[in-house]
Formats: sequence, structure tokens, C-alpha cells
Amino acid sequence: MLYRELAERARGKTGAWCKACPVCDGRACGAHVPGPGAKGTGTVAVRNYQAWEEWRVNLDTIRPYAEADTSLELFGRTLSLPVMVGPVGDVRRHYGELFDDVSYNRCVLSAAAAQGTVAWTGDGLEGSIVANATQVIASLGGCGVETIKPWAMDVVRERVGVALGAHPLAIAMDIDAAGLPFLKGQNPPAGSKTVDQLAKVAEQCHEAGTPFVLKGIMTARGALKALDAGADAIVVSNHGGRVLDGVPATAEVLPGIAEAVAGRMSVLVDGGIRSGVDVFRALALGADAALVCRPVVVAAHGGGQQGVEDYLAQLRSELADTMEMCGAATLADVGREMLFS
Amino acid sequence: MLYRELAERARGKTGAWCKACPVCDGRACGAHVPGPGAKGTGTVAVRNYQAWEEWRVNLDTIRPYAEADTSLELFGRTLSLPVMVGPVGDVRRHYGELFDDVSYNRCVLSAAAAQGTVAWTGDGLEGSIVANATQVIASLGGCGVETIKPWAMDVVRERVGVALGAHPLAIAMDIDAAGLPFLKGQNPPAGSKTVDQLAKVAEQCHEAGTPFVLKGIMTARGALKALDAGADAIVVSNHGGRVLDGVPATAEVLPGIAEAVAGRMSVLVDGGIRSGVDVFRALALGADAALVCRPVVVAAHGGGQQGVEDYLAQLRSELADTMEMCGAATLADVGREMLFS
Amino acid sequence: MLYRELAERARGKTGAWCKACPVCDGRACGAHVPGPGAKGTGTVAVRNYQAWEEWRVNLDTIRPYAEADTSLELFGRTLSLPVMVGPVGDVRRHYGELFDDVSYNRCVLSAAAAQGTVAWTGDGLEGSIVANATQVIASLGGCGVETIKPWAMDVVRERVGVALGAHPLAIAMDIDAAGLPFLKGQNPPAGSKTVDQLAKVAEQCHEAGTPFVLKGIMTARGALKALDAGADAIVVSNHGGRVLDGVPATAEVLPGIAEAVAGRMSVLVDGGIRSGVDVFRALALGADAALVCRPVVVAAHGGGQQGVEDYLAQLRSELADTMEMCGAATLADVGREMLFS
Amino acid sequence: MLYRELAERARGKTGAWCKACPVCDGRACGAHVPGPGAKGTGTVAVRNYQAWEEWRVNLDTIRPYAEADTSLELFGRTLSLPVMVGPVGDVRRHYGELFDDVSYNRCVLSAAAAQGTVAWTGDGLEGSIVANATQVIASLGGCGVETIKPWAMDVVRERVGVALGAHPLAIAMDIDAAGLPFLKGQNPPAGSKTVDQLAKVAEQCHEAGTPFVLKGIMTARGALKALDAGADAIVVSNHGGRVLDGVPATAEVLPGIAEAVAGRMSVLVDGGIRSGVDVFRALALGADAALVCRPVVVAAHGGGQQGVEDYLAQLRSELADTMEMCGAATLADVGREMLFS
Repeated sequence: MLYRELAERARGKTGAWCKACPVCDGRACGAHVPGPGAKGTGTVAVRNYQAWEEWRVNLDTIRPYAEADTSLELFGRTLSLPVMVGPVGDVRRHYGELFDDVSYNRCVLSAAAAQGTVAWTGDGLEGSIVANATQVIASLGGCGVETIKPWAMDVVRERVGVALGAHPLAIAMDIDAAGLPFLKGQNPPAGSKTVDQLAKVAEQCHEAGTPFVLKGIMTARGALKALDAGADAIVVSNHGGRVLDGVPATAEVLPGIAEAVAGRMSVLVDGGIRSGVDVFRALALGADAALVCRPVVVAAHGGGQQGVEDYLAQLRSELADTMEMCGAATLADVGREMLFS
Repeated sequence: MLYRELAERARGKTGAWCKACPVCDGRACGAHVPGPGAKGTGTVAVRNYQAWEEWRVNLDTIRPYAEADTSLELFGRTLSLPVMVGPVGDVRRHYGELFDDVSYNRCVLSAAAAQGTVAWTGDGLEGSIVANATQVIASLGGCGVETIKPWAMDVVRERVGVALGAHPLAIAMDIDAAGLPFLKGQNPPAGSKTVDQLAKVAEQCHEAGTPFVLKGIMTARGALKALDAGADAIVVSNHGGRVLDGVPATAEVLPGIAEAVAGRMSVLVDGGIRSGVDVFRALALGADAALVCRPVVVAAHGGGQQGVEDYLAQLRSELADTMEMCGAATLADVGREMLFS
Repeated sequence: MLYRELAERARGKTGAWCKACPVCDGRACGAHVPGPGAKGTGTVAVRNYQAWEEWRVNLDTIRPYAEADTSLELFGRTLSLPVMVGPVGDVRRHYGELFDDVSYNRCVLSAAAAQGTVAWTGDGLEGSIVANATQVIASLGGCGVETIKPWAMDVVRERVGVALGAHPLAIAMDIDAAGLPFLKGQNPPAGSKTVDQLAKVAEQCHEAGTPFVLKGIMTARGALKALDAGADAIVVSNHGGRVLDGVPATAEVLPGIAEAVAGRMSVLVDGGIRSGVDVFRALALGADAALVCRPVVVAAHGGGQQGVEDYLAQLRSELADTMEMCGAATLADVGREMLFS
Repeated sequence: MLYRELAERARGKTGAWCKACPVCDGRACGAHVPGPGAKGTGTVAVRNYQAWEEWRVNLDTIRPYAEADTSLELFGRTLSLPVMVGPVGDVRRHYGELFDDVSYNRCVLSAAAAQGTVAWTGDGLEGSIVANATQVIASLGGCGVETIKPWAMDVVRERVGVALGAHPLAIAMDIDAAGLPFLKGQNPPAGSKTVDQLAKVAEQCHEAGTPFVLKGIMTARGALKALDAGADAIVVSNHGGRVLDGVPATAEVLPGIAEAVAGRMSVLVDGGIRSGVDVFRALALGADAALVCRPVVVAAHGGGQQGVEDYLAQLRSELADTMEMCGAATLADVGREMLFS
């Protein structure tokens, strides 16, 4: 089923604020939280979407016929496409009754694994969410990435320990969640972390042979700090506009960050990526892979696990089509010169 | 009859998706295919139209009085204006019951010939479309251009052979159609072509004394490959946004391509050209002539062959008016300095 | 009465197409001619208006207190403000029954003279329009400018001869009207003029001691040709978008033209000027004075001669206010450095 | 109570023209004066708001955990946040019956003092407004800034004399009010002031040990004149678009002015600042503190003194959040490099 049809079926089931729009561009949900809206004026999510559209791809079909290979090596595993399902927390609060965090994570982890890629799971106040995600990821042979929030260091250590039990593809920390009120309400207050603190988390992961990813990097300087901390990858992300208003679109900061990193770690990106053309743009601007979040929630509400699988398959197909139309046989062929400037 | 009136008469006859708008700017049809919409987000057709509008022409009427000569030498023939009717395929599927491919081609070929220019015909799964177009073009003394899709090479050879029978003005291949699903469904799968393969098609045409045109060039690099393949002309085209989303507008890439070609072959362009002022802009940006597609379908639905003739006459008249108001007596006078920058 | 109120009173009296909008910005009338709309897509009038808005003025009130002097020396006379009423032809056809060309010209000539400035009169197929305008201008002591269209040279000579009888402030030719169909329908066809032809018209005026103005200059090259022809002034004008679609806004081309002219003749401008702030912008960009057209028609319909006087007084008051707020005591003080960049 | 809720409660109580919008962005009130609208086209207020939005902040949470310190030293006092309540005059005329100038000033002075900052009071035809404000400010230990209009010098001297009686944080003059009709109607007409005249006002203040602020500076040149006059601070302000149409947004001119001042006096700014993110942007562009005006009126109507306190507390909290998310522990840490460019 096409995304458009999945969205149509999801309409009415996604809670009071998500309208399951044909194109998830941040307009209808606006600034309302709870719900999938963005913080403050609600405009960051809208800009995230638009900033990809502004990059135009270079069509060129005079070349040998070949089917595009969309597969990616990441952390020693092969993904069938450079797209992962991004983490979503508090699903019930934002999207209504159909899923809770546990059932949603199960749905997307299974769908992603079936499509040869992985889903990322979210974190929440209750430790059981991580525990449950760990179980499912373990049952899928480690096909998943667990995201841990920047709690106080002892809580982080404990949750990372649990998560490592699944031998997941990677452990991530969404460091951009530092300002969330429930983190600052802890005793001692949690939130931002130093390079040294993050180095300890990286070390804990590495000892278990698991890569560590820092999610929520929006500057070249932040990326270099992540590198110093020993992160194996970063996600260029503004948390979909939900942690701070007024930040740039991820497509705006990605090129500068990728250049600063210069291949020394993997660069992932999320925010407003909705189609295979958007994925192509992200790769051409220096990303190794993309995360897609909100539309997956819609696909899950519209078609369950199969809906998520269909959407991932659609993204792969659109990406392959774009690669073939622009003359890229493999992901390594996709470069900045394939964008119009 | 003016285009505005033709569109009014066409309204209600152009199928479920074309709204026969007063100005065909890609907004009302949006992303719906079948129908005249564009692929993905549907925004490429809209951008095609807008990108011409952004170029402003330099009015200057202090000059000798002269009526503008809009005639063009192309491939050894004289056209009365630098505008040709672009190819449209699968007319019934996209625009409803009034025309099929055969009757539509007949209508536009006759209208264009009567107005001293030519129409381009489309190609489809059934070989009979090419055969029928060949008959009509032959009966018009070769007044037409047949477009062949990038099928497997043996199919191309066969269809080009048929088309050459009409001694048409040229044979074209819409190489940007490479990604269409029905081409990839062939055995072996068809689609993109190498310079060597295209050189063979060019050779087959040249042996029959017929020029060969590559349609669907969007980069300077692609244009140089077309030149290497022996093409006599290219059409800067993104297929009206129907083969790949997220590509630039043709008006954006035309100047760079024309500069790269540097007069070594003819440069044609299509995409969002709706008025004689737009034709003038295209010439000033380096094109030798333009193709107009969607509005011709509307004109045909609104007034049949006479409607298409009227629209072509209107374009010629608007172009002549613009030339006279900007100080160009002949097409050769129209240059980049006649645009404001 | 404020313009806003005049427009309110005019509503319903200005024919089928003019909506007498609170701000005359070219949107409501669009592309409809007859009516006050613009040619083709109808967007030039809209751009004319917007282009002034994009220039921002530099507020600075730390300066000696002084009331601004808005008076201007032009062609040896003193105008009380650097704004003249621009010519409008075929008033009845475009704005309905309330005025015809004769009564409209009488209204605006009298109003402008009463306010210490002048109105420009239009020209039409019937020679009586010029004759009538000449009478009124003569009765006002020459307070007016007569605009003659670029007819065949003998017709021009004759009409200029008639117009000179009024000893008007100046004679103008709207050379941008060259493409109007009724001019090309003459025998021999009329329209664009060479520098030599225009020099003859200038000579005829100068022999009578009357300055000659070329209206409809949109390029530096055109301005230099006007200078060569002996013109005493030009009007940077695109005829409100009514003679050619796709041209730049006058505010866009004015700075380059003023620079090319370098003070060797007067530079006037029209197109989308609606307020005293707009007049200030025009002066700061190099104009000596501005012409205002469409809103005067609305003011005349809303309040007759008094309405036009009120609107001119409002423009003078707004201009004086802007000058005082930006630190200009006289028009000579208004310069490019008073705009933000 | 959040601002959004305060606005909801205020709706219907704020007179005929203020709509108490969820975000006060100048659109709904437009060009209507009386009422909170802006002058002329009414677009300056809209641009003021938008210009802040165009600056994007650099999220970076890899840093030591620390709660942001939002306190500011200004004129020898400590403010709990770099935001003051801006002056509003003629409250009843613009916002209806709920407040008059005296009760409004009392409300905001008390609220600001309770929140550890100060409110600025306006001035009007009746001298009693200044007298009343002086009383309240004196009762609050000088917690307030009195704004005196640029009356004739003897009136200024008298009112400043009254105002100094409160030992206020500072005395300000809104020099951009120079063009208001009731000032020019005085005998002799009042309005703009020279550097020498302003130096006398500064001297009068300094003799009483009170700093003097010039409000309504929009150019670097104006700022240097304020410095020459001995002003201790300026407010970069266009009076919310109410004194002159067509001026730049304050966010556009702030960086150039701050650079010209180079720390030699304090730089304050107002115009469209609505959130803590906007305050952060203002500081990053070179301001020492910001004034917020229209939303405070709404907050006062929605929740009285408590409403104003809540809104100030919200601004402080949003600013602290933004500082923490961007890595600024104190206001001194907020710099241009924290904005994306």
C-alpha cells in the first residue's frame, strides 16, 4: 500500500492532534504538544521538511543500464536501504490509544527487521520501556538501536547495561533531549553531558562490542565533541523541532557538519525526510543514512507492521528510482555533484 | 479564439484531473497521475512555470519600426515560429475520452503543419501508435518529429525504422523516460542508454538523412554526452516533472547547458512555457526553440485542430510583440542582454 | 478625506473591473483588460507595488527641528511636491460611466493645479482629446503635461503642434505604447521611433520653448538614447504593466538608469507608487519626481476634484513626514544613504 | 498561566482592534490606529516579528550541566532577566476600557518589580501621567524607567525634573516620536532634537545621578549621535512601526548598530520580541537587554498584575532553556557564534 493510502486509513486513529496528512510537513500539527507538533512557534518541523525540497537533483539517464543497489554497510551489518525508523517516545500521549510504547516498538522493530533495516526505540520515565525493547531486539538478533536519554550518569549506566543485553546494532543517546523538564526534575538534575561523561558511556558500549551514537548534533563544533567522546556516529537532528524552537533545519547544517567530520565517523540525519528523493538529498549532502520518524507512526496506525514495511519498501523503491535517474549505481556514487547548484 | 477562451470551452472535457485552468501552472493538477500532474510532491511542474516568470525582459522601443520575423531554420526547414507541439502519450488515460493517441496525434500534427511548424508524437506500449503517427507525418510531407522511448535496443531499432519511413523533420528519444516502470518490465529491462548505444540510434537516423534529437537533458554533462553520441539537438526537459520529483526547473539549467553546448548542436527546451513572453525568455537564455505540451492538449479539447492552430498563432503573435517591444527584429537578435539582471 | 475613505466612496462606481481597493496593489484587478489590470499574467502591476516596499527607509530624528520643504523646481516652474498625476486614457472603457477622457482630464488638471503641481493628460484615437486637454491646460496657465502617443511622424507633428498651444509644462511621448494594436493598424503602421525621429519631436517642442519628455524607459541604454534624442526628462515606466508582460518593476531598474543618466536630464518614475513613503523611496533611488496614476482615478471617482486634491495633499504630508523622520529638510537632501541596505 | 492562556482570557477585553492573538505578530491588527496596529501599510510590525524568526540558534548540549543565570547588571542594579516592560501610552484609546494610563502603569510597574525587573512608563499630553508614574516608581524604590516625549525643551526639563523625583533606574526619551502630530502642534512646535539639546537632558539626569536613555535609534549614525549626546544607553526601536512606515525591522539594524557602539554604551532593543528564544536572538545580535510591549498589554488584560508576572516568568524560563540548550551559562556567554549563519 502506498503511503498516501496508509495515511488515509490512519486518519481518525492517530489521536487528537495528528491529522495523518498525505504529506507529513508539520503544518497541520503546528505547535501543539502533546501531539506531534513542534515547540514554541511550531515552525522548525515545517522548515525541516522544506529545506530538503530546496535542494534539486540532477537528472541524467545517459549511462549504462543498471539496477541501483541501495544497500549499506553500517556497524558491520548490511542494511537493505540507508533508512532506519527513528525513535518515538510516549506514543500514547501524542498519538492516542492504538499503540503504547511497548506495542509500537514491537511493531516497528519487526517491520524494519523484515525489510532488512532497523528501528530505533525511545526511552521514557519507566525503565520497563528499555527492558521491553531489549527483549524484542534480542529476539530479532540485535536488529535495533536503543536510544537512552541523558539521565544522571548512574541511570544511564544502568539502562545502557540493560540495552546491551540485546546485542543491538548500536546504543544511542539523544543528547538534544537535555532540556526536557522530566530530566531536570531528577535528583541530581540530569541533562547535558560533558565530553568526558559521554566518553564513559561510549566506553561501556565499546566494552560490549556495541557502537555508540550521539543523536541531536546541530553544529560542526558539537560533532567534533562527539568525535572526541568516541562516538561511532552522530545523528544530525533537532528532535523534529520538539526540544528547542528557532533552530535551523537539519538539511541546512548537514553539509557543514559532514565536512567537519570528514569521514571519521558515520553521519546520520533526520528531520522532515519523507520520500526516497529526500533520502537521496541527505546522502548527497554528506549523510550515510537517514532516520524517518513521524510518517512511520502514521504508517503503523494505517497498516500495522505491514504498513510500516510497505512504507520502508516505498522509500527503497523511490531511492533506487532516484539513483537510477541520476546515474548512481551504488550509495557510494551519490555525491554533492548530483545536486543542482 | 484566445487560449483563455479555449480553456473555458475545454473545461469539463479533459478527464477527471485536468481542470483546463486559464493559466496552466501545475497547481490544480498537483501530484495526481494518471492525469497531467507531476510525480511525488507534484511541485516540479509548478516550478517549471514559475522559473520563467522570474526572468524579466528589457523593454526598449526606441528603435526603427519593423515587424518582428519569428521564423526559424531548423534541420534544413523553415518553421514560422520557434515553437513546436511537444509529445503527449497515453492521452486517453490522462485526459479522458475525447481523444486517443492516434486522433490526438493527427489533430496536433495537422494543426502544427497548418501553422508552419511541427508537432512531436509520443510513443507507447503498442507499436501501432508509431505506425499511425508515421502515416500522418508522411501525409504531411514529413512535418513532424517522432519520439521513441528508450526500449531495448532491438525494439528501438525497429521503431526508428518505421518512423524513418515518414521522412520526418527528426527522430527523438525521450531518454528521461528511462525510469518508467513499463520499460523496466521488459525482458531484458529497458531504460537508460550509453553514449555508444545512442550513437547507434543516431547513425541509423543519419543514414536515412534524418536528424536525431535527445530529449530529457538536465545537465551540462548530459548535453556533452548527447553531443558525443552524435545528436543533432537536445531538448532541455524534465518531462514536465513526471519522471522524477525534486529536479530543477528547466529555466534554471538551460543557461548552463546552452553555454556548455556552445552552438555545436541545437538546444530546445520545454516545461512550463505558456506564452510568447516565455518563448522569448527561453530564446534569450540560449534555446533555439521551445516545445509546448499541456496547454496544447487543452487547446485541442477546447477547439480541436482549429483550437491548436489558434493557440500557436497566439504564441507567435505574443512572441512577435515581445520581440518588437524589446528591440529584436529577428530571432538571432534575441540574446541574454535582453533580460534584466 | 483620506485615500482609504475616498476608495470606500469610490467602490461600486469604478466600472466592472476596478475594485477601488484600500491599497491599489494590482491584485484585485489582475490580468483583466479592459479594466485597470495588467497584460498577460497581470503580475507586473503587483511587482511594481511590491518592489518599493522592499526598500526600507532610515529613521533618524536626532537633528535640528525643521519642517520639510517638499517643493521642486522642474522645467523652470516650482511644484509644491515632487508628484504629478500620471496620464490615463480611455477612462470610460476601463473605469465605467462616471468620467470620459475630457471630464477626467479636466478634473485632474484642475485638482493638480490647485495643489501646486500638474497632471499629465493621455492621448487617444480621436484628436479631440488632445484638443480638449490643450484648452484646459491653457486655461490653467500651462499647468499640465500632454502625452502624445508614438503615431506616424506626421500625426505626431500635428498633435504636438496642437498641444504646444497651451504652453504646457512639457510635452511627453509614451514611447512604451509602441506595441499597441491601434498604432500598428495605422497606415503606415506607427509605433517605435528612432533617435533621429524623436530628435525631431524634441526640436519641435524646443522651438516653442517647451521641454520634451520620453515616457516608458526601462533600461540604461534606452535612457541614453533618450538623452541623444534631446529629451529633457524621461519617465522610468512600464506603463503599469499594460504594454508588455514580464518586465521588471520600475523600482528595480530605476537606480541603474539614474546612475547612467548622471544628472544630465531629469528622471521621473511611475508604477506602484501609492504613498509619500513610496515617493521618498523613489527620490532616494535617484528620481527627481514621481507620477501616480491608478489611485488618482479612484480618488476622482470617490471625491471628484476635491478627492484628487485631498489625495495629493495626503501624499505631500506623508512625504514631508518621512523626510522629517529621516532627516531630510529639502528634496535635495534625500539620497541613497537614507535607505537601508 | 502560559501566555497562550492569558491571551485567550484577554480576548474580547482588549478593545475594538486588538485581537489578543495567540502569537502577537502584527497581522490581525494590521494598519489600524487607534488600536495596536502599525502606520501606513501596517507591515513594519509584521516584519519586526518575522526578522527575529529568520535568525536560527545553534543547539549544542554537549557541555557541563548548569542552570543558566539570566541575571543582568544594568545601571548599577541587578535585573533577574534581560527583559523590561516597554512603555505604552494612551492605553484606553488603543485597547479599550479596562485600563487607563495610570492603572496600566501601576499594574506593569508592580509586576515587573515583583519579577525582579522594571517597567517603562509612557508619556502623554497630560502631565499627570508622568506625575503618577513617578509616585508609583518612587514607592517601588525606583524600580522603573520613565519615558519623556521630545516636547519643547522647557517642557522636557520640567517633566524630567518631576520624573527624577522617583530616583528611577533611568530616564528615557523616545526620540522617534518626533513626528507625532500633537508634538508638532505645540507652540513652538516640538519634535526632533539636536545632539546639543539632548546633551542638556542627559546632563540634567546625570546631575541627579540618573542614567539617560535614547529610545528610537535605527541607524549606526543615530547611535553615534546618542553617544555624543552623553546617553548611557539606546533602545534600537522603530516604535513598533507606529511612527513611520517602511522602516527596517529592528533585528535587521541591530547588528550594525551594536558594532558601531562597540560597548561604549548599553544597547537595548524592542520590536516583535515575543519569546525567550527571541530574547536570546537579540542578545546574540548584540543587545544587552530587550523591551517587550504589546504582549504585556495582552497579559495585563488577561491576568492583571499576576498575568504580567507570569508572562515575564515565562520569558525568563524560555530564555534559560534556550541558553542551556545552546551552551550559555550566563548572558555574557551569548554571542553571535550561537546563531547559525
